[in-house]
Amino acid sequence: MKDNTDKKLTEIARQDDHISYKKVGHIPKRGIWHWFFGRPLASADAPHQTIGKAVGLAVFASDALSSTAYATQEILVILALAGMGALSLSVPLSIAIVILLIIVTISYEQTIHAYPNGGGAYIVARENLGEYPALAAGAALLMDYILTVAVSMSSGVAQLVSAVPDLLPYQVPIAVSMVMFIMVVNLRGVRESGVVFSIPTYFFVGMLFITLGFGVSKYLTGTLHTVTNPPEMELIGPASGLTVFLVLRAFANGTAALTGIEAISNGITAFKEPRSHNAGVTLMWMAGILTTLFLGITFISHAIGAVPSEVETVISQLARTVFEGRNTAYLLVVGATTTILIMAANTAFADFPRLGALIAGDGFLPRQLSFRGSRLVYSRGIVLLAFVASLLIVVFQARVSSLIPLYAIGVFLSFTLSQSGMALHWWRSSKLKGKKPRRAKLKPLQATHAHQALTFDANWLPKMIVNGFGAICTGVVMFVFAVTKFQDGAWVVLILLPILMAGFLAVHNHYKDLAKRLTLEGFKLPGPIKRQKVIMPISGVHRGTLNALRYAKSLSKDVTVLHVAVDAEAGEKVLLKWQKWAPDDNLVVLGSPYRLLLEPILRYVKNAADNRKPNEIVTVVVPEFLPRVWWHGWLHTRAAQLLRLRLLFTDGVVVVEVPYVVD
Amino acid sequence: MKDNTDKKLTEIARQDDHISYKKVGHIPKRGIWHWFFGRPLASADAPHQTIGKAVGLAVFASDALSSTAYATQEILVILALAGMGALSLSVPLSIAIVILLIIVTISYEQTIHAYPNGGGAYIVARENLGEYPALAAGAALLMDYILTVAVSMSSGVAQLVSAVPDLLPYQVPIAVSMVMFIMVVNLRGVRESGVVFSIPTYFFVGMLFITLGFGVSKYLTGTLHTVTNPPEMELIGPASGLTVFLVLRAFANGTAALTGIEAISNGITAFKEPRSHNAGVTLMWMAGILTTLFLGITFISHAIGAVPSEVETVISQLARTVFEGRNTAYLLVVGATTTILIMAANTAFADFPRLGALIAGDGFLPRQLSFRGSRLVYSRGIVLLAFVASLLIVVFQARVSSLIPLYAIGVFLSFTLSQSGMALHWWRSSKLKGKKPRRAKLKPLQATHAHQALTFDANWLPKMIVNGFGAICTGVVMFVFAVTKFQDGAWVVLILLPILMAGFLAVHNHYKDLAKRLTLEGFKLPGPIKRQKVIMPISGVHRGTLNALRYAKSLSKDVTVLHVAVDAEAGEKVLLKWQKWAPDDNLVVLGSPYRLLLEPILRYVKNAADNRKPNEIVTVVVPEFLPRVWWHGWLHTRAAQLLRLRLLFTDGVVVVEVPYVVD
Repeated sequence: MKDNTDKKLTEIARQDDHISYKKVGHIPKRGIWHWFFGRPLASADAPHQTIGKAVGLAVFASDALSSTAYATQEILVILALAGMGALSLSVPLSIAIVILLIIVTISYEQTIHAYPNGGGAYIVARENLGEYPALAAGAALLMDYILTVAVSMSSGVAQLVSAVPDLLPYQVPIAVSMVMFIMVVNLRGVRESGVVFSIPTYFFVGMLFITLGFGVSKYLTGTLHTVTNPPEMELIGPASGLTVFLVLRAFANGTAALTGIEAISNGITAFKEPRSHNAGVTLMWMAGILTTLFLGITFISHAIGAVPSEVETVISQLARTVFEGRNTAYLLVVGATTTILIMAANTAFADFPRLGALIAGDGFLPRQLSFRGSRLVYSRGIVLLAFVASLLIVVFQARVSSLIPLYAIGVFLSFTLSQSGMALHWWRSSKLKGKKPRRAKLKPLQATHAHQALTFDANWLPKMIVNGFGAICTGVVMFVFAVTKFQDGAWVVLILLPILMAGFLAVHNHYKDLAKRLTLEGFKLPGPIKRQKVIMPISGVHRGTLNALRYAKSLSKDVTVLHVAVDAEAGEKVLLKWQKWAPDDNLVVLGSPYRLLLEPILRYVKNAADNRKPNEIVTVVVPEFLPRVWWHGWLHTRAAQLLRLRLLFTDGVVVVEVPYVVD
Repeated sequence: MKDNTDKKLTEIARQDDHISYKKVGHIPKRGIWHWFFGRPLASADAPHQTIGKAVGLAVFASDALSSTAYATQEILVILALAGMGALSLSVPLSIAIVILLIIVTISYEQTIHAYPNGGGAYIVARENLGEYPALAAGAALLMDYILTVAVSMSSGVAQLVSAVPDLLPYQVPIAVSMVMFIMVVNLRGVRESGVVFSIPTYFFVGMLFITLGFGVSKYLTGTLHTVTNPPEMELIGPASGLTVFLVLRAFANGTAALTGIEAISNGITAFKEPRSHNAGVTLMWMAGILTTLFLGITFISHAIGAVPSEVETVISQLARTVFEGRNTAYLLVVGATTTILIMAANTAFADFPRLGALIAGDGFLPRQLSFRGSRLVYSRGIVLLAFVASLLIVVFQARVSSLIPLYAIGVFLSFTLSQSGMALHWWRSSKLKGKKPRRAKLKPLQATHAHQALTFDANWLPKMIVNGFGAICTGVVMFVFAVTKFQDGAWVVLILLPILMAGFLAVHNHYKDLAKRLTLEGFKLPGPIKRQKVIMPISGVHRGTLNALRYAKSLSKDVTVLHVAVDAEAGEKVLLKWQKWAPDDNLVVLGSPYRLLLEPILRYVKNAADNRKPNEIVTVVVPEFLPRVWWHGWLHTRAAQLLRLRLLFTDGVVVVEVPYVVD
């Protein structure tokens, strides 16, 4: 809790005799839990430091850069269906993808400047397009973050397996264990200390540049050989001619290289001031490195005749050909690639819970997702992500090529929505020439949410054209993607998207409805309760029930004790004991020839509740047996619990549990 | 409820102003449930008619007689390991088993006369040997009833499959479905109408006598052929020489023929008077039929050269050889055998819950097992039996030969304990010559249980010798069984037996301990509660919590409302709302910088409870949100529930739930 609000609460309490305020500094001790997840952190401990461009690149680029580890291979996988000759198409396709990348980068650069407080697709769509597009962007991104974890982890394990083929049969358990490991690390809370991120990111970039540099120089000197002992090429489907459809399919696969490009726009606030400027420069650098790596890998892969395979990745083939063997340099490249892929999964573990919390805060997901756990992270979102991603890994057996058709479609939907939103943003701003800044006229998503104010921008036209063009390009790619990958798995995403959106809306309606019913506006408190009618069902006369009777009598003079006599002999015993131990209290015995226990009591209570006087309430005192040893619960009927649950839904009835702990 | 006790309750209530009694005649309507399991039956509807010898034979003999369907085959299975030549040993082995059968029958005949109210092994051991032997007998019998279901059903399906080989791959699902069917029938409650039992039992006996008669006459006229196209003999283990161990193993397998012989001793009370006499005569008849069938089947099987097989049962081979083909007569024999095996499983569904209820009544199993369901049957025992037996069928893939090593060892343990108990019974009775009847000096198992009185019997010596000899014979067989079948699976039983007994004792100790703690003997009621300290935690100020506040204020003037401020801004909102809506009531705000919700409340309440005055009690009012739509529960934290559960175990605290149902 921030100190200034703390002060505010203290102030209010000081002025009001009926209100007191105290801060509880208590940290609970839970040995093993804390050892595993770390000691709790106070709300005031939330990190506030900002980062520069170099560290920012390391923190935000791992997702985007890591996709170079599989993008080339996934283009080749499709081209291979049309035979070895078609593989050379990978180079022009990569160039096309890089052009798309440049368009998207420029578009996002504009977004970063327009939304200095964070311009993710969800926010941009929410600000400019309204509820449904925002929810579509949110759902698409959430799905894609899950797929980022599954794809990156599967690809990371594929790199590992390329270097250590003995691990081939254990791909799935290794991938799942790694997801669990990242989950635990994130539940502890990753301090974005820069160094932790910088080392693997720059190491990867460095190693790849060295590899590609060697490769190009060898190529130019004519000493670059083809892959020795290439892995057997496996076709992922039936062989086909080199059709336009196939080429588009390969292109769609390759666009996986663009995933992660939006990361910086979500995290602008993490940068040092001038943050929009710094974030924009970092974005440019990232795009530059990404372009170089992607084109380089595609070119050298083609030069050495690398083939797509589930047994050895293209990166591994490339490294061992350039460095002529599985030597130290080779191992460093593969190790760096594996590490950056793990870092990429880790990025999703930061993005998914944050977006989940944002959507939950707007009331479209369960509110619990917006609560921070003891380590100040959105624990529930982290666990949810780990669980669903692991499920995907198991279902798709950690095969990257099977996951790719589901991947990236969500990213392109969010690109399209974000760019369209920006185009509209510039168009609206053009109307404000010479006027005061104004908020958007859209209905805000939540009562607590207000739109960012819009100001006039003199360059609105070129900016609108850039974003509009970006929207059209990414929209077309998304369409190509949906059509060409439909059969391979994209249909799953196209079905899940509206389902998720419907879920968001259902959750939202519930919260809205609830707020309406609980509101105090126009509420008139009814008069105080004047009379209590107390009913207490008992199963026998013993210390536990007599103790509960003592409590019942403290509530009201009007106490009726109920006993259901299922067994006549036992019923008689209860009567005689009652006469001895509570001769002055009222006992009603209900004979139940059909051995029903709850129904006669429920009927009796309901009857009493229906006939209660105004300002009277019926309190049911339930004496409850509580065993301290868990299995002892099995030795007793759960009648008290069932009764409680049924009575809770009876109007005008309040349930009191008087426990008797015996063990 | 019986009418005379009903009258008694009415009488007590009439004389005491504070007690009222009324009988609830209400039958709840639960459509599909009743259609499936039948309408509830009143306690007064319990059947009281008794049966004669002919019907008695039908009701009690199915278990024993049905074992002839597999006993011969299971002898052959073992002998086959020593080669085809060894199969002829089945005839002398069967004769040895029949001699054992005669000894056991005479022993039980004596038990029936000594315990006319039911003389099962558990009761006889309880009356004469004490706690541990009784529990051993009980555990052994419960296990064997489960195995009776598994073995009979597997054998029944094997007969079916012999006639319709197409069903071979579906043995397990068929067997499990049949167990489920019998479970439902028994949950409805089997009216032992005699006819239902008589038809299949006498039909089976008749068909088998006809078959064997044909067989013997063909044998005498020299027209009995050997089996045509016999199934391939499968060895269940490695081939072996004809060792003594192997012969004993075959003998042990064959003793499965004796299972079920004890059934009549459990059900003496069902017979018409003179019941001991009628039960005894029925036992003799049953033993006679069993002997004839078992010897006949073994002899003819040997004569036709039947071989043991999992594909076609010996009974099937016998029937198609005698009747020369798979004709109507063949189908009738196999059908009758299948039916009697199903009836045998059904017997266990009557015995297991009854014995379970008996043991539960003595406090060694959860009391719920002694409660009768809406159809007057011990529903929980029936479901438990069906579940465990189905599990066995699945684990052992419905193979009779795999189940047999686990079977019958429990029966022989109970035989041994029962006969030893009877021997001791006669010895003790000899001491009473010329004295009054006396109860056993053993510690009774339960306070409510009294031993049957012992009277002098002039023939005590021969009777003691008979039972003593029976005990020795069955004891030796049990020992042989345990040794020869140890490896094949008997070890499971030998491990489970002491575990079950330990479970019985643990349950018993819990009940004894509980009774001691709840007893009113020496109990002095504390004075009435004078003061109520009410604490009410709230998560916000709205209709639900203000409604709960209204209730809290009706309990006491000393009401403190607690709010844990995890989020400072929300905390401030609560304060301001409180000042507006409940300005005169006390609010304590606890600032929780570690975002803990429950712990500060629990601490506060515990502190209040520890510092309470004499005759004061702390009542915690928990306003609880109850969604009507199940998944809406996920949209709210379960804080109220967790709080309630933790508070229930806090000494001196009573929990009141004030629900607000909103949907």
